[in-house]
Amino acid sequence: MQRKAIGLIGWGTVGGGVVEILSRDRGLFAERCAIDLDLTTIVTRDPGRVREHSAGSARISNDISAITNDPDIGVVVHLVGGTTEAKDLLAACLKAGKHVVTANKALIAVHGDELFALAAQHRVGIAFEAAVAGGIPIIAALRDGLVANRIHAISAILNGTCNFILTKMEQENWGYDAALAEAQRLGYAEADPTLDVDGTDTAHKLAILARIAFNGRIPLAKVRTQGIQQLTAQDIASARTMGARIKLLAVARQRESGLELRVAPTLVPLDHPLAAVNKNANGIAIESSSAGPTLLTGLGAGALPTASAVLADVIDVVSGRYQATAGAFRFFHGGSDLAFVAEIDEVTATYARFVVADKPGVLAGVATALSKHGANVLSIHQGQADPAGRATIEVVTHPLRLGSMQAAVNEIDRSGLTITTTTLLRRL
Amino acid sequence: MQRKAIGLIGWGTVGGGVVEILSRDRGLFAERCAIDLDLTTIVTRDPGRVREHSAGSARISNDISAITNDPDIGVVVHLVGGTTEAKDLLAACLKAGKHVVTANKALIAVHGDELFALAAQHRVGIAFEAAVAGGIPIIAALRDGLVANRIHAISAILNGTCNFILTKMEQENWGYDAALAEAQRLGYAEADPTLDVDGTDTAHKLAILARIAFNGRIPLAKVRTQGIQQLTAQDIASARTMGARIKLLAVARQRESGLELRVAPTLVPLDHPLAAVNKNANGIAIESSSAGPTLLTGLGAGALPTASAVLADVIDVVSGRYQATAGAFRFFHGGSDLAFVAEIDEVTATYARFVVADKPGVLAGVATALSKHGANVLSIHQGQADPAGRATIEVVTHPLRLGSMQAAVNEIDRSGLTITTTTLLRRL
Repeated sequence: MQRKAIGLIGWGTVGGGVVEILSRDRGLFAERCAIDLDLTTIVTRDPGRVREHSAGSARISNDISAITNDPDIGVVVHLVGGTTEAKDLLAACLKAGKHVVTANKALIAVHGDELFALAAQHRVGIAFEAAVAGGIPIIAALRDGLVANRIHAISAILNGTCNFILTKMEQENWGYDAALAEAQRLGYAEADPTLDVDGTDTAHKLAILARIAFNGRIPLAKVRTQGIQQLTAQDIASARTMGARIKLLAVARQRESGLELRVAPTLVPLDHPLAAVNKNANGIAIESSSAGPTLLTGLGAGALPTASAVLADVIDVVSGRYQATAGAFRFFHGGSDLAFVAEIDEVTATYARFVVADKPGVLAGVATALSKHGANVLSIHQGQADPAGRATIEVVTHPLRLGSMQAAVNEIDRSGLTITTTTLLRRL
Repeated sequence: MQRKAIGLIGWGTVGGGVVEILSRDRGLFAERCAIDLDLTTIVTRDPGRVREHSAGSARISNDISAITNDPDIGVVVHLVGGTTEAKDLLAACLKAGKHVVTANKALIAVHGDELFALAAQHRVGIAFEAAVAGGIPIIAALRDGLVANRIHAISAILNGTCNFILTKMEQENWGYDAALAEAQRLGYAEADPTLDVDGTDTAHKLAILARIAFNGRIPLAKVRTQGIQQLTAQDIASARTMGARIKLLAVARQRESGLELRVAPTLVPLDHPLAAVNKNANGIAIESSSAGPTLLTGLGAGALPTASAVLADVIDVVSGRYQATAGAFRFFHGGSDLAFVAEIDEVTATYARFVVADKPGVLAGVATALSKHGANVLSIHQGQADPAGRATIEVVTHPLRLGSMQAAVNEIDRSGLTITTTTLLRRL
């Protein structure tokens, strides 16, 4: 039996999950892999706060040096949010020669290059399974399980808050505000949910997955990001009409000319497995050259699912495996040079909702403009006009260059065929 | 860049997939993790056969010593079927100090104890990601990704041949024989499909997953195994009537009194994610203490998906990670003592189809017998009687002790209430 001393920085929700698992199931690791995980030190801003789960004999301090100066501690669990103090604390651990396990996706997505280089310099590793999709072991699956595959595409639901809100809106006809409030009440959404609902959190996670899958640096600016705040009940209902559900979808797709990266509300057809990933669940669909289609679903957030991923990383580090990983995989050290596809050159199926006057020639006008720009209609739906004589034409197109579809919609809107600005969404 | 020499034993379907990936994508491993995988030697029964993919400069021999006597080769890919010659070849590699990567599930399930002990004695590892669910990295997910979880249950579709046959029967109303012939034509089923359709292959895979999840020896005799050969078009149609699909389901569930292990045709409700795993796909649903519900789906067989898993293991071995895994995880060395639940004490929801004479009192008789044995009805369906006056009563029960339900059915059949022997299936 090998005893391994662990330090923990940050005793919030996920830190509480780590303490809970280690206090309840410390024997599990001993039984499984003859490792005794000994949480010796916790650094927290608020050492005096009363907690649900006792940290046993762990020292509790508000001073990072309680960890960095302790030669007994080989691995530090870093559960601090944000990218400023969190970065300094992580760097301090690396400089002290400690391996770090973190759940901070923003830090890895934004400062990964710098931090991985610092880790290499100090001959330690930064493990981050918990940064993407919580309890789903997607980082390892992508990096190790699919190492023999060229990745063609990743399509993923990576934010449980947004998925919960969209599920409530779709399945129970809730409004956006009510669904958000319920997500907050259940602890799925932060008090300030901006980074969830505006797509930033999903973009961070996609950037991390893409870095691994495509083996290169992913500047966040290359991930086109749109949130769910603008979605209306009408959008949700329209998706249903077209046999689909709206999901905040992260997509990375390798094209001949480069990599497409985007986060956007997207119509997912009901027969696609990601359409069945509802409520606060996450799901990642991968298309690869040898394994073919692979799908992983599970809980992407919450104290215990995230702590599950954190402790998987801890075992990876203390068993000596992670050092081999961090040394070998080139995405930690820059990797290949990647090209990126501009938004207008993105190729995607689309959904458009045209609000028009219900009179002869309008449908022909819309259809002609679509055809002129190369938009091939997969399905079309026009409902009865409202009392004011306004009709809605809904169209799903086959995949085409997004810039062409945008040009078609702009031309239609400018021509006076539509009464309001046309809604244009992507479809998977 | 580290060059790593690999030997391959067995150049059949999966061996061909390994050769194909290494000839087409050798550069991928170099790009990703600075490892140059050099397939130097292939041992095959039939060195002269013309192959679709060239093995480049590899030596081709029919003599195992071409690999075992070559000090340059550190890892051997073992793709030989069966449990006799295959075992000797695997053992010879271990004794020669070579790490082995195998896709042979029968060998691991039946002779795992002996082979793992031999490997430990020679300080090498046996990696077997490819033995279960092909391209889905389920072994690593269960062993490493979920290491911080107590596993409550695994429910899985692990045989693509059976799943393909059942999908054809259900979705296209094919008969069993026609569906099996089509599976053979497409290369999903062997010329002799017995081990697939009788559930043995699934039982081997379940035993391997359970060994990891529950950290102990799984004697195959403890896995109750029933195949799909006896299923009729009536069974398939009945499942549909009850809002379910029949799948050959492998289930391992931890109960207070021990472990339930079974492979059996099972009604899977349509709203369960495993119901959407169709055709030749595999799927594994895991319920665990911290990560919660996790689902992995993908291609469980075929040359390239299986080769994807084989090469993931090869990278794991040559990067030095697998040695740490094989040394640390106790399931390789026996693990914990496990208790098993007898079939009659298994707790499961059930489906029963009673064929009865359409006359007063029969339904009451059936319902009374069910109630007497503690079977609580979840749903019941009785169709119109046929011209001969025979009616069918279909019942789904809440979970109960299987022995109690069997006793209820036996009592009903013996009482003369039924015209034919009652069909009893499990329901998820």
